[in-house]
Amino acid sequence: MEDINLHFTGDFHAITAANNLLAAMIDNHLQQGNALSIDARRVTWRRCLDVNDRSLRAVITGLGGPTEGVPRESGFDITPASEIMAVLCLAEDLPDLTARLGRIVVGYTRANDPIRASDLKTQGALTALLKDALNPNLVQTLEGGPALVHGGPFGNIAHGTNSIRATRLALKLGGYALVETGFGTDLGFEKFCDIVARQTGLIPDAAVVIASARALKLHGGAHKKELATEDVDAVRAGMPNLLRHVDNVRLFGLPALVAINIFPTDTEAELAAIEDGLARVGVAAARSDIHIHARGGEGGRRMAAALVDLLGREGAEFRPLYPDDLPLRRKIETVATRVYRAAGVDFVGTAPRDLERYERLGYGALPVCVAKTQYSFSDDPAKLNAPDGFRLSVRSVRLSAGAGFVVALTGDIMTMPGLGKVPAAERIGVGPDGRIIGLD
Amino acid sequence: MEDINLHFTGDFHAITAANNLLAAMIDNHLQQGNALSIDARRVTWRRCLDVNDRSLRAVITGLGGPTEGVPRESGFDITPASEIMAVLCLAEDLPDLTARLGRIVVGYTRANDPIRASDLKTQGALTALLKDALNPNLVQTLEGGPALVHGGPFGNIAHGTNSIRATRLALKLGGYALVETGFGTDLGFEKFCDIVARQTGLIPDAAVVIASARALKLHGGAHKKELATEDVDAVRAGMPNLLRHVDNVRLFGLPALVAINIFPTDTEAELAAIEDGLARVGVAAARSDIHIHARGGEGGRRMAAALVDLLGREGAEFRPLYPDDLPLRRKIETVATRVYRAAGVDFVGTAPRDLERYERLGYGALPVCVAKTQYSFSDDPAKLNAPDGFRLSVRSVRLSAGAGFVVALTGDIMTMPGLGKVPAAERIGVGPDGRIIGLD
Amino acid sequence: MEDINLHFTGDFHAITAANNLLAAMIDNHLQQGNALSIDARRVTWRRCLDVNDRSLRAVITGLGGPTEGVPRESGFDITPASEIMAVLCLAEDLPDLTARLGRIVVGYTRANDPIRASDLKTQGALTALLKDALNPNLVQTLEGGPALVHGGPFGNIAHGTNSIRATRLALKLGGYALVETGFGTDLGFEKFCDIVARQTGLIPDAAVVIASARALKLHGGAHKKELATEDVDAVRAGMPNLLRHVDNVRLFGLPALVAINIFPTDTEAELAAIEDGLARVGVAAARSDIHIHARGGEGGRRMAAALVDLLGREGAEFRPLYPDDLPLRRKIETVATRVYRAAGVDFVGTAPRDLERYERLGYGALPVCVAKTQYSFSDDPAKLNAPDGFRLSVRSVRLSAGAGFVVALTGDIMTMPGLGKVPAAERIGVGPDGRIIGLD
Amino acid sequence: MEDINLHFTGDFHAITAANNLLAAMIDNHLQQGNALSIDARRVTWRRCLDVNDRSLRAVITGLGGPTEGVPRESGFDITPASEIMAVLCLAEDLPDLTARLGRIVVGYTRANDPIRASDLKTQGALTALLKDALNPNLVQTLEGGPALVHGGPFGNIAHGTNSIRATRLALKLGGYALVETGFGTDLGFEKFCDIVARQTGLIPDAAVVIASARALKLHGGAHKKELATEDVDAVRAGMPNLLRHVDNVRLFGLPALVAINIFPTDTEAELAAIEDGLARVGVAAARSDIHIHARGGEGGRRMAAALVDLLGREGAEFRPLYPDDLPLRRKIETVATRVYRAAGVDFVGTAPRDLERYERLGYGALPVCVAKTQYSFSDDPAKLNAPDGFRLSVRSVRLSAGAGFVVALTGDIMTMPGLGKVPAAERIGVGPDGRIIGLD
Repeated sequence: MEDINLHFTGDFHAITAANNLLAAMIDNHLQQGNALSIDARRVTWRRCLDVNDRSLRAVITGLGGPTEGVPRESGFDITPASEIMAVLCLAEDLPDLTARLGRIVVGYTRANDPIRASDLKTQGALTALLKDALNPNLVQTLEGGPALVHGGPFGNIAHGTNSIRATRLALKLGGYALVETGFGTDLGFEKFCDIVARQTGLIPDAAVVIASARALKLHGGAHKKELATEDVDAVRAGMPNLLRHVDNVRLFGLPALVAINIFPTDTEAELAAIEDGLARVGVAAARSDIHIHARGGEGGRRMAAALVDLLGREGAEFRPLYPDDLPLRRKIETVATRVYRAAGVDFVGTAPRDLERYERLGYGALPVCVAKTQYSFSDDPAKLNAPDGFRLSVRSVRLSAGAGFVVALTGDIMTMPGLGKVPAAERIGVGPDGRIIGLD
Repeated sequence: MEDINLHFTGDFHAITAANNLLAAMIDNHLQQGNALSIDARRVTWRRCLDVNDRSLRAVITGLGGPTEGVPRESGFDITPASEIMAVLCLAEDLPDLTARLGRIVVGYTRANDPIRASDLKTQGALTALLKDALNPNLVQTLEGGPALVHGGPFGNIAHGTNSIRATRLALKLGGYALVETGFGTDLGFEKFCDIVARQTGLIPDAAVVIASARALKLHGGAHKKELATEDVDAVRAGMPNLLRHVDNVRLFGLPALVAINIFPTDTEAELAAIEDGLARVGVAAARSDIHIHARGGEGGRRMAAALVDLLGREGAEFRPLYPDDLPLRRKIETVATRVYRAAGVDFVGTAPRDLERYERLGYGALPVCVAKTQYSFSDDPAKLNAPDGFRLSVRSVRLSAGAGFVVALTGDIMTMPGLGKVPAAERIGVGPDGRIIGLD
Repeated sequence: MEDINLHFTGDFHAITAANNLLAAMIDNHLQQGNALSIDARRVTWRRCLDVNDRSLRAVITGLGGPTEGVPRESGFDITPASEIMAVLCLAEDLPDLTARLGRIVVGYTRANDPIRASDLKTQGALTALLKDALNPNLVQTLEGGPALVHGGPFGNIAHGTNSIRATRLALKLGGYALVETGFGTDLGFEKFCDIVARQTGLIPDAAVVIASARALKLHGGAHKKELATEDVDAVRAGMPNLLRHVDNVRLFGLPALVAINIFPTDTEAELAAIEDGLARVGVAAARSDIHIHARGGEGGRRMAAALVDLLGREGAEFRPLYPDDLPLRRKIETVATRVYRAAGVDFVGTAPRDLERYERLGYGALPVCVAKTQYSFSDDPAKLNAPDGFRLSVRSVRLSAGAGFVVALTGDIMTMPGLGKVPAAERIGVGPDGRIIGLD
Repeated sequence: MEDINLHFTGDFHAITAANNLLAAMIDNHLQQGNALSIDARRVTWRRCLDVNDRSLRAVITGLGGPTEGVPRESGFDITPASEIMAVLCLAEDLPDLTARLGRIVVGYTRANDPIRASDLKTQGALTALLKDALNPNLVQTLEGGPALVHGGPFGNIAHGTNSIRATRLALKLGGYALVETGFGTDLGFEKFCDIVARQTGLIPDAAVVIASARALKLHGGAHKKELATEDVDAVRAGMPNLLRHVDNVRLFGLPALVAINIFPTDTEAELAAIEDGLARVGVAAARSDIHIHARGGEGGRRMAAALVDLLGREGAEFRPLYPDDLPLRRKIETVATRVYRAAGVDFVGTAPRDLERYERLGYGALPVCVAKTQYSFSDDPAKLNAPDGFRLSVRSVRLSAGAGFVVALTGDIMTMPGLGKVPAAERIGVGPDGRIIGLD
């Protein structure tokens, strides 16, 4: 696990390095006479680090006098939220990578004209830093099964899908390619459909919704600490959450299979309640026993068979949620009302100005990537199950011109997480055998 | 070249990650109630990035209100200047690495008591991040010769020597181990003798001083742009610089060999002038033709033979420059007056307070690591050749308790470089064949 | 004019000095060990200066290391927005002044307990600085008529009424006391009724609404540059604005007189249109010709007579808009919907948290003081005339515990103005006769 | 006392207002397009407040985004350290005031060309704010004696002399004019001679050095808490301090009278020891009993008579210490070595660059104003009595082009003081009779 989670093949490090080289090039340009007339206060490019460090969310750089750069307010995101991560995951090949990197908008002049990475002649050096990271990584499961692990744009704060190069490779190598799209149908799935499929033509044939009795109990009102106790009523009470995810899949014209992940504490009555609830509305389902019971691939046979069966039975009529030419504001409202079931969207803070600017600069045809908590369909982590009637609050919108979308930040979602009261790092160490301990 | 200079095996990335995890743990501790009563203004641990970014030299972090950390002034160093880099290069094995990481002093309480990484329970997680980076990297030359490339603490701003694990490995695998100690005898060499040898018992038998006609012409007064023109007088005028390096080697009780690196533009008269000047004072010398003429290993035979010969002829009586129990201030003065030939040292800025604190806290027995320009024996890059009579200015002293030395910052030396007027990155790219171009 | 507008009797300077002494006491407490455990990030007290200086709106103070204070984010307001200004204007006498100053909440501990000026033992020194400023200033008109000019809390960003000591003095010295309450009935008038009258028992008998043909034309759609041209239609189109002000007066149970300020460019048709529009709905009106035509007191006779007549005819049944025990949020909504005619209020940014905190700390019974643009009934300066259906946006709420109200900041209203493209200061100077020029 | 020490006639407030209007004009210029190409990092004009507030020494202003100014590092001084204070005290009349205000250098362009207040068209508005403050203030002693109290540039951080307009007025109104020059002969006196006399032609005829047994005991080694105990030996041991002041007076060609201020705890033996020590080297002396014994004017008769006598006996041959055309660096060295008796001067930090810049810009002919502790002849407050052999450390030099001198900041001298552990403000209040208490 740690081989994947720590440094792995260095892709995240390469992305971090490229992200921060671009930042250094911007600040150096300001320092060296600022031939492009960049307004230091309108630089939008942020630095990144792959660490949970809330103290870097808002910083001032360039302090110390005329030889030490130009003072300006900025901040750091976590690496998965870097536009470079999204660019890497959406690039078809090296030339496309270079072109996308060059299109990145890093800030604006005083007259509000955009400045691109290509204006700073940086796209080549960024490509050089990323050229190996662009290649997918092949790993194997404990049973020796192949898996491609490549790219990590979190589904809550980014577009939530692995690299399209990995997906294309998987499609070439196997009969079926399964793509994990981070978090629920409101996040990774919607983004796969509206961003990835739209940009690349990689049209999905079906979607598997992962469910568990534990999660449904939580959505059904059970306390977080009592999820190991049988509570069939809570399972039933939580079913609207699952059904809404299924509805969301169908909203995009795709057949849905619910994979019920089995946990040791689940009871047969609970699992039956899920199956019963799904059957009543005609939703295909299959139990899956891959992970927790350590049955591995064998535990996934039923689910795989059900999926193959579904693909044979139901054809897809994939359609993205909105057309390209819908204004950005309306795109966000469409995702919010149709996928999240919000009553409406409040554009606060800089969001109205941001959207107006992107439309004016010709970026109105881009799809939107909503950064939203994964704990709720709404932007309030406390609103569980299947809330509606709420209003989604968009406080700012960032342009990812290289990745090819705009990012709407909702609620209190942060693009740089913080550590907790007792960080996991306090428990981690290296044992006498040289193996990492504490990564439970 | 780029495989070594860009990401290589990820050691620098691992060091960067560890350095910045420690920073995040400190700021998180401040945020989560500050049980250790750390004074945010007395946090000395800095973040790092492996990029030339002057705008990160002085920053304010933790802005944005009570949920976003504690505001404080800080800064970033380049990764080679991180204490983690020095710790990695000086650690004997994993337990020693963990122990050293735990000893790192990251700041002080309001009562000026030191706070260590171990107080934050971070040494284990840091070790986990570094456990693979601790292993030396074996690469091969174009001719297939083996070389260990491991660790990169620059000799001007850090202690300038590769990892001792690499050196110990080399000593086991071969008859002779050559260690490159960054820059001149005033920097990497002095630090190898006074820090590395002192800490590890790795006592050198001889030192090779690399010289070139071009460098001597520069020290002898020739203009930087005319180094390709024959100028025997300038070579002769620059000889005091070379002879001082030889003297410095002898100061530590070691025999010295001067390797004269041959460049295509050198003339026989110039090379003869060097040899003549050395012979006159009985210094061993040999021409070396490895790099520029692409003669490779063959071009180094003479130098190697001369070195073996020297080792057979002259025994070493190695002695470090100063005893452990000399006060820190006197150690700095000793290096300055005996190795750099300064008339004296001015301790300005926070340096007097820093030194007083380290002595008081019991760190007075540590050796000193002077951060100084590599362009001059003095702290003024413009003072070429063999200056004396100057005063060395120490403006602050940092404690590297994990690495086991204190770092004295002199002159205008920066632990975070800046990019130039036209950064090399502007020329770099990836060619149609997927190879990096512009890294000339 | 400049004797009143520049330093006058130094009241503003005294308020500035008191405001900033309190700030210095807070920061000194943080520096000297922080016995009260104030959370530097939760200090709410801001410094002030009586200058338009946008660069002081958001600052970081306390930089430079452990001896130079504690770094924190803060800002400056213009002096009329200082709570000290409000306190001075609402204080009955020296003991009340001291008590109010002591009650000022300057920030919070990490546990969110309030810290008051009295916790810092500062109320005495503040009183000493303000003791002369507490006394009203008597000036005379060009004709020798007496006027009390005392206190200047702007009606847009503060409570908009001169000191109650001046009003009480006027009531003792004359038959009638006229109080200027800054800007329209939505600002100074509402605040006089809901804050000043509520706190002091100074109940008004009637209200004079000042109108002009020029203003009505602007609200009626005429261009700012064409107000000197006759446009009876625009006057009529702007009448809803004036009538709403009259309605607002009646909302508080007071009789209203409209004083029509005559400008040289007004035409008889325009003035008649105003009178006609008012007469149609039974509103008393009188032309006033005091200022522009330089007729002075004589020009005000008609208006004065009309007011005396009105007072004889219509009795007041004064009632504030809301009861003390209405929650703060509801008070703001009441002002917004009933006085401004908003459709509702959006509490964004820190406003919800702010209000929750004040309720929890027992300040829920205070009246509210809405900081809002004077250019519109709404919080959008561009919405002229008599808009409705809009939503008021409250982005933060400040507690003025010493003054005895909370301040709701709406829209883009700033408590520190900025200078314009060509500041008036560029034209100001002192002529050869020692008189100030350029203050047109 | 408080009438003079608190707001008095508002002169300090007017200076504060003018100082900060100039700052607002600079930042507004940066905001409004920066037609003058000012480098925000090279703005040298600081804001000021008349309060001890260390947290304002180093601040960052202009934060919050493109509409809120340009972020830059700056700071506040205490009002007496403002150049406006010095300008007011040195201005002959309104036109001279305006001219001086216009000459103030507020910063530099990126090309290091100076920007003046006149470039911002601000000198007129500043004059308007200062026109009344320019007039001297006449107060009376408890006995009804007249005194002019006008201007307050502290002698340690500024030039230490009241306004020349007050001095000229005194010379017209009386037979003798006594000018208090702040602190010792090393501060106010030297500055009067080298700055004020040089600029204005107001040449002194003699100097009165104020001495006391208490001060001499402190300089002679007695503990601060035992100054009330007779200690004739300590008095004698402290005499070198007094004699050096007398020497300094003579250095400028002036006759000196020592006025011995009598305190209740002084003993006759102590006073005699002083007189004896002075008589031995032929220095005129007289006891003075004005203040502490409350004998008032009567107590000063002897001193006055002695002064008149001295003036009749000894003629002055006034000469400033250095010629105008001595380089700035040499001027500082001359004051340091001849008046302070330093062994030499170290120019550290930005001082060498500062001086080089001022010479280059044509300000080399200005006199120097050294900011130095008043507790010692040296820049170290702990070095009492008559130290020599020390080195003076100059860490930065500020240009006061409007006042007409450069200010050299030495040692740890601060132009913004801080409050103490228990600020006097905690004891201050207003009594029931409306009188201020706690101002002991």
